[in-house]
Amino acid sequence: MKKVNVLILFFLFYITDLPAQQKTFQVVPLGVKGGLDESNLSSYMVAPAGSDKYICLDAGTLYSGIRKAMERGAFRKPVLSVLKENIKGYFISHGHLDHLAGMVINSPDDTSKNIYALPQTIDILKDHYFTWEAWANFADKGEKPTLDKYHYVELSEGKEISADNTEMYVTAFPLSHVNPYQSTAFLVRYNDEYLLYLGDTGADPVEKSTKLEELWKYVSPIIKDSKLKALFIEVSFPDSQPDSKLFGHLTPKWLMKEMEVLSSYTGKVALKGLPVVITHIKPSGNNEPVIKKELKKNNLLQLKIIFPVQGKKMIF
Amino acid sequence: MKKVNVLILFFLFYITDLPAQQKTFQVVPLGVKGGLDESNLSSYMVAPAGSDKYICLDAGTLYSGIRKAMERGAFRKPVLSVLKENIKGYFISHGHLDHLAGMVINSPDDTSKNIYALPQTIDILKDHYFTWEAWANFADKGEKPTLDKYHYVELSEGKEISADNTEMYVTAFPLSHVNPYQSTAFLVRYNDEYLLYLGDTGADPVEKSTKLEELWKYVSPIIKDSKLKALFIEVSFPDSQPDSKLFGHLTPKWLMKEMEVLSSYTGKVALKGLPVVITHIKPSGNNEPVIKKELKKNNLLQLKIIFPVQGKKMIF
Repeated sequence: MKKVNVLILFFLFYITDLPAQQKTFQVVPLGVKGGLDESNLSSYMVAPAGSDKYICLDAGTLYSGIRKAMERGAFRKPVLSVLKENIKGYFISHGHLDHLAGMVINSPDDTSKNIYALPQTIDILKDHYFTWEAWANFADKGEKPTLDKYHYVELSEGKEISADNTEMYVTAFPLSHVNPYQSTAFLVRYNDEYLLYLGDTGADPVEKSTKLEELWKYVSPIIKDSKLKALFIEVSFPDSQPDSKLFGHLTPKWLMKEMEVLSSYTGKVALKGLPVVITHIKPSGNNEPVIKKELKKNNLLQLKIIFPVQGKKMIF
Repeated sequence: MKKVNVLILFFLFYITDLPAQQKTFQVVPLGVKGGLDESNLSSYMVAPAGSDKYICLDAGTLYSGIRKAMERGAFRKPVLSVLKENIKGYFISHGHLDHLAGMVINSPDDTSKNIYALPQTIDILKDHYFTWEAWANFADKGEKPTLDKYHYVELSEGKEISADNTEMYVTAFPLSHVNPYQSTAFLVRYNDEYLLYLGDTGADPVEKSTKLEELWKYVSPIIKDSKLKALFIEVSFPDSQPDSKLFGHLTPKWLMKEMEVLSSYTGKVALKGLPVVITHIKPSGNNEPVIKKELKKNNLLQLKIIFPVQGKKMIF
């Protein structure tokens, strides 16, 4: 019996330890769509697996998304408690309303925390949203009087910073979103593993930019080391959308072309099975089923394509 | 038998005709709350009873509200068809995000229509929302290039205009919303009957303003003639909220004080049974039941207090 017990203990240790090693991040999508539905706009809570200290990548929808996450069992406390206690800071990719409306709307009931963004995005928040004409200035810079609830933290391109009150670190990279307008990619690190989130972006050839290629080059060693746990990237329109009407967004075809560029740095094997979470599908007409079909059809690199569900916790 | 038939016909004519005479307006609330929940922010579709040509008073939430209205049977067509075909124009009371976010978010999929507002509100739309940094300029003035989908119509205080492509006429009146910031009341006319909608406003004594009293004075003859079918007015906070923390909003107590001022012009009898629709309750803590209780308790004028439900059609 003793031997059997030891074996059972060893087996239990092995099977419980294995997922702990493999699961690095948990993500609760608060909003997954690229427009129209005000209750479901881009916003992703990210924490180390098992932690309750999240950062929020974009903040298009907060309240409606947290409520949905409660319904789906991701949180077991009141909506405002999650907002106040579990979101430790916002990382805003760019100044478009569908990526920050939830933060502005909920600011009166929020707690003090940091808003992290590249300088041009902070300027948009200062000049257009946290003003007394458009809302109230809950931040610590911009139009007086400042209510000083939110502290702006200006990110520098390619320089890693600590996300306050969490165990995560974040590096920002610029993206082109209707050149010369910019958006941001956030590379989130916990210990030596990573999650990469891209705000809205067009493909380099369409944008006449090299921003994506520079990003792919930067993250390729991480991918080759199997340290990238997930890549969140947008696909707003189906392939039928003409390049001249992309407005700084991707289609399935353009996503796969960019993944080919990435594979030129990583090799194709490294991308096989990489979790690629598709964000920001614009829910007009039958975009959603069409985009899903087109992505599956053209997935020659055998990426693990994932469609996030609002409020449904994901583990990577 | 013939006599009976005639009587039945007469009776049927009488009971079907009576409501037609009495019912002037139909209102579909697309959003009824004063904050937090991005899927349910101030927005009211108003049309003559039986018409499908609506104006939209404020536009905090559109898409989520129309979807809810479909679920509740108010519309029987796709969400975007209602948005495109049934909303003929937006009347925006002021520039705060919770009164216009839905319009901005849905603008890419909307049809060409007018945005009606006082000049200072149009300036906020031009300077803060329909800019290329915060969104895209779907309007016909402001930052270039203009996409010219929306046409700004500047309203003049107290001057009635026709709401294009509807049978309604609207007059705007300024309100004080954290003096000197302004909001707007819209007096909607169809034939010789009226509906009055107030955007966010504080009470005159708190705001050190006379704007509400001037409005009450203006509408008092309409009320005395029993031509005002409904009054939509905000109550954001319960009575426990100190006057110094009202941020340009009303409480049950202050609403009733303002109704007393109104009654000084109309007489108390004229207000008895007047439908007063309570908008913009801030859904923090237990505000909602407390505000409802306080309003019912202090309703000495016997107003007909109504709490709108998102998506549920109301007839006045």
